[in-house]
Formats: sequence, structure tokens, C-alpha cells
Amino acid sequence: MRGAVMHAPGDVRVENLEDPRIERPTDAIIRLSATCVCGSDLWPYRGVDKLEGPTPMGHEYAGVVEEVGSEVTGIKPGQFVVGSFFASDNTCEICRAGYQSSCIHREGPRGAQAEYLRVPLADGTLVATPEVPPADLVPGYLAASDVLGTGWFGAVAAEAGPGKTVAVVGDGAVGLLAVLAAKQLGAERIIAMSRHEPRQKLAREYGATDIVTERGDEGIARIKDLTDGLGAHSVVEAVGTQESMMQAIHSTRPGGHVGYVGVAHEVSLPGMELFFSHVHLHGGPAPVRRFLPELMGLIGERTIDPGKVFDLDLPLQEAAEGYRAMDERRAIKTLLRP
Amino acid sequence: MRGAVMHAPGDVRVENLEDPRIERPTDAIIRLSATCVCGSDLWPYRGVDKLEGPTPMGHEYAGVVEEVGSEVTGIKPGQFVVGSFFASDNTCEICRAGYQSSCIHREGPRGAQAEYLRVPLADGTLVATPEVPPADLVPGYLAASDVLGTGWFGAVAAEAGPGKTVAVVGDGAVGLLAVLAAKQLGAERIIAMSRHEPRQKLAREYGATDIVTERGDEGIARIKDLTDGLGAHSVVEAVGTQESMMQAIHSTRPGGHVGYVGVAHEVSLPGMELFFSHVHLHGGPAPVRRFLPELMGLIGERTIDPGKVFDLDLPLQEAAEGYRAMDERRAIKTLLRP
Repeated sequence: MRGAVMHAPGDVRVENLEDPRIERPTDAIIRLSATCVCGSDLWPYRGVDKLEGPTPMGHEYAGVVEEVGSEVTGIKPGQFVVGSFFASDNTCEICRAGYQSSCIHREGPRGAQAEYLRVPLADGTLVATPEVPPADLVPGYLAASDVLGTGWFGAVAAEAGPGKTVAVVGDGAVGLLAVLAAKQLGAERIIAMSRHEPRQKLAREYGATDIVTERGDEGIARIKDLTDGLGAHSVVEAVGTQESMMQAIHSTRPGGHVGYVGVAHEVSLPGMELFFSHVHLHGGPAPVRRFLPELMGLIGERTIDPGKVFDLDLPLQEAAEGYRAMDERRAIKTLLRP
Repeated sequence: MRGAVMHAPGDVRVENLEDPRIERPTDAIIRLSATCVCGSDLWPYRGVDKLEGPTPMGHEYAGVVEEVGSEVTGIKPGQFVVGSFFASDNTCEICRAGYQSSCIHREGPRGAQAEYLRVPLADGTLVATPEVPPADLVPGYLAASDVLGTGWFGAVAAEAGPGKTVAVVGDGAVGLLAVLAAKQLGAERIIAMSRHEPRQKLAREYGATDIVTERGDEGIARIKDLTDGLGAHSVVEAVGTQESMMQAIHSTRPGGHVGYVGVAHEVSLPGMELFFSHVHLHGGPAPVRRFLPELMGLIGERTIDPGKVFDLDLPLQEAAEGYRAMDERRAIKTLLRP
């Protein structure tokens, strides 16, 4: 099969790879309908995360089941399925508490930017649609595999809900989908922090009531201006840098909630500032599996359209261009078609 | 009047000070029945926090109202009252959300290790008992002014409750009262981390079911051993050092809650570790006022006896010895009688 491999920062190639096969009786093999490039794939692409040799890329996937292992009972060939970037048994105590991305048996899958993918723990990981969906819904289902579930978790962790003012730091796909999530969760006011016109536009479509273009101390001051000097009730952090984390914490009122889903690179939180900020802080790798049944339902009935975050649609063969476009911020998110 | 003043690290003197007086119409003056030395008073005593000249000490107080300002309507002379270490209006949006220690008008009071104290925002800050209580309940009420409310907040922030395993890092008065709080809140199992025999004993009296004497990585391993390898559901951090914060975070299961109430000195939380720990983190200066009515009720009906944390009872005149005894860990907490 064909699949994308990162050889070095800035060097992504689509190559012939061995077809994946059932390795354990709990595995499934899926034929990908679509896959995509994640904001987190840009960390190694930019040389921030180290690569240990050539690495098959991708962890977002939606597709049709080809084959299942002998112990798989809940999923069968021919079904259209979505799974999370962490496979989980969905039965352990941590999964049952809703933290499937910290499942005691969690693992991969990796290498989803390809024609086929082996998904471990298929029964716990994959969620099937009632029928194979029409082609125009595939991007939305693909978004559910990571960015939608991650933005949603950010909004849930920030306790977005009725009567709340929610601010979102970060205008990538996750930030934009956190806006969508806050809207669905009933937030009264949603402030998107963005200085990019096309992203502001999508944020408004998804439910943002206000746009703040300032960053850092000025961004914090603007949020305070909009909230009687108190700060937002809920702030979603969807970047993962020191500046964005501190901006999120200081934009939140005492007693408010920060939900952080940006992968925290070289972030160090000063204890005393956190202490006196009086905020709740929760986040980490999104337990996408917790939300998949609900989110796939909303997509299937066309209540939400998270697929709009894909503003570049390429054949898998052109993965390198897909990475470049995201790196240069020409694209919010690249969908790849095997 | 007489009052304790810290002149330099290790140098506390009881001196003649000016009597406090009503400065604003919302003030009250109280005659202290008892006051005490706080663990946080040891930070300047040990030279960790800098002093800016001679400083009247103390922020914990219970006593009888002497005089009230012209705008005070809810409190009257002769009542026995308790207040928090932060005065609060109890009407602003932050107070109404239960975060009175971040009240938009918060201030002092300071200088409570004395015969009299001026309490600002008396209507919002002070809570009166139905009658002047018997002498043996005074230590309990005094504890409600800070350490009980702080331990309670730690347990609430850690979401201690039925079915939960709660671990408490720190065996000072706040940690011990977090054990009491976890018990009252219905926790199933309470693990106190302590290596001091008298404190272990009081922890057991307050409801601890297990004692862990190890610290750091070994302490974390012991907590994991006691919780099927997962970590506690709820961990209260009641020390405020880098080691204790990381011990708390790593002793908590994914999706669990850390409530931190130790004043975070030189603490810096690594973003990536926090991210993958998947915990909820909440804490800060305890909004004692939120809990005072309930806690004073439990003390008055003798359901709880938080006054046991005072294992040294001295006349105010001997404040210096009270500080020394706590600094040398000969006493858990020193009560001072004006």
C-alpha cells in the first residue's frame, strides 16, 4: 500500500509500505476513506519533536472495515467506522470514568496517512455508523477522530455551558471546533481569539459572538473588558505554548475553568500565579472515544459540520504539499484521500 | 493593646500597639477570644518570604464584637464571630460563585495575633454563632477561620466524596483537617501521608484509613499499590513545595482531582507531565467564607472537633515560643490567648 513517511523535518514522502495485517485477535484492519494532517504532526515537521528514523505518519482515520481478528465481536467487515488516536479497551476503570485516552491498555494506532490501517482493541476503539455515509459527510466523520473530539473535550473541560462566557485561545482546527462545541453546549457568549480573517469567518459560522485579535497581555485585557473586568467563565487553550497557556489562565475569572488541549511544549506553569489565579485546570490528550457516539450522531443528522475545517483536499500522494500548506498557514487542515 | 510583631526572620516580639479603631463605616472591631500561628507565618519566619520592616502578624481570629461601623447591619456588639483571612463583600459576582477569597474588594485583615482586630467589610466577612459558645469550643471555631476551611476547600477541590479514595499530602494542621473534611464528605478510603507518629494518630482519629510514610517516588508507588495501580481519585496537596505538588499530581489517577492549598513557593509545573497526567487541578487561597456557616454549625453541634490540631496553648505574651515550637515541628499548631 501507499503511505506517508516523515524522513526528517520538512521531508514527508508517500512510499510503498507493507500492508498492515491482523497481529492480535482484537485487531481490525480498515480501508481508509479519508485521513488528514494534524497540527501535532507539525511539531516533528518543524524539528521541535525529534524523529527516531523514518516514521509512518497520521493518527486520524475514518473508513470501512476490511477484516477483524477472531476475538472482535462488535465490529464487522463492511461497516464504516471512526476511532480515536488512542486505541482503548473501553472496559477498564479509567475508560469507564471517561478517560479512554489514558486507558491502561492504550496504544497507537499510528501510520494512518495511508491506504490501510491496523486498529488495535477494535471493539473498544471503533464506533460504526448505522450505514455507510454519503461522501459529503466523510470529512465530518474524519474530524470526529481527533480535532472535533479534542475541541469538544477542551470545551467540556472548561465547563462551557448555558450562561457562560467562553473564550478560545487558538484558531487552528481544534480551536475552531472548540467554538462549535461551546455553541452546542449552550454557551451564552463565545469569544474567539484569532487574527486570521478566514479563520475568524469560520469561527463566526461555528458560533463565535466576538473576535479578539490581540494576544498576550493585550488579549487578556480585551477579554477582561468584555467580561466586566472579571475574565471569562471558561477558557479553552488549543495551542500548547507558554504564552497561550498563561493567556488562557489569566483570561479566566477566579473560580472559572481552563480546558487545555494544546500539547504542552516547553510549558512551565509558575505555581504562585496559578495559585492566586484561582482557576480550575483540566486537559490532556482528549478522550475522544467518550464523545464519539454523540458526535457521530450529530454529524449523521447534519446538526454540526466539523468537516469545514478541511480547507485543503488532496490525494494522499500529495501529502508533502498538505504538510507544507499547514506549516505555512495557507491551510487550516489538510484532508488526504488514499 | 498587646500584639505580636515580626521584626526579622526568627524574631517575633509581643509589643504595645495602637488599638485598632473603626476606619470605614463597614468595619467592625473584635476582641479576640483566641488567635494562632499559621503554617504560612513560618515562610517569613524562616526567611523564605521577605519582610518589609516590622510586621504585625496573624490572620486567624475568633472573638466578640466590640464595635461596628455605621453601615454594618448584620453583626452587632456582643456577638461571637469568626471570619476568614480575607475580608470579602460576599455580594460581588466572584463571591456569589463561592470564591470570596478572590472577592473584587478583598483585603486584609492582618495583625490578628493581638488583643483587638479591625475587620473590614464586616457584614460580608463575619459569621456569628447563635450564642457565645462555651470555652472548650473556642479552639474549634478559631480553626474554622483558616486551617479547617482551607483543608475543607482542599478536599472539595479534590472532589472527595462517597466511593472515592482520597490521599492527603502534608500532615500539618491543614492536611489533618483535609482528612477530617474527606471523612465528612463521605470518602470511602483516606490515605494520610505522614511520618510523624503524633500526627498519624490524629489523622486516624480524623478518619484516615491508611498511613503512608514514604515520600516522593516511593510515596507515589505506595499510593499506586493501594489503588490497583491507578492512583487515588482525589489528592489534597497541603504543603506547597515542588516535591509535594508533583507527588500529588503523580498520585492521582487519570481523570482524578488534585486540590492544592499549600501556598505554592517556587513551584513550577512541567506542562507535558501535567498534560499526560490527565488530572484536574484546582486550588488557591481557600474561600473559607463559603464554608463558614456549615463548618460553624458542625462545630457548634460537636460533630467535628477541628480544635484538636492545637497541641500547644500559650498566652499571647509567649508568641515567640509558639513560633519556635512550630518551626521546630514540636507543635502542629499554636493557639495564642490574648
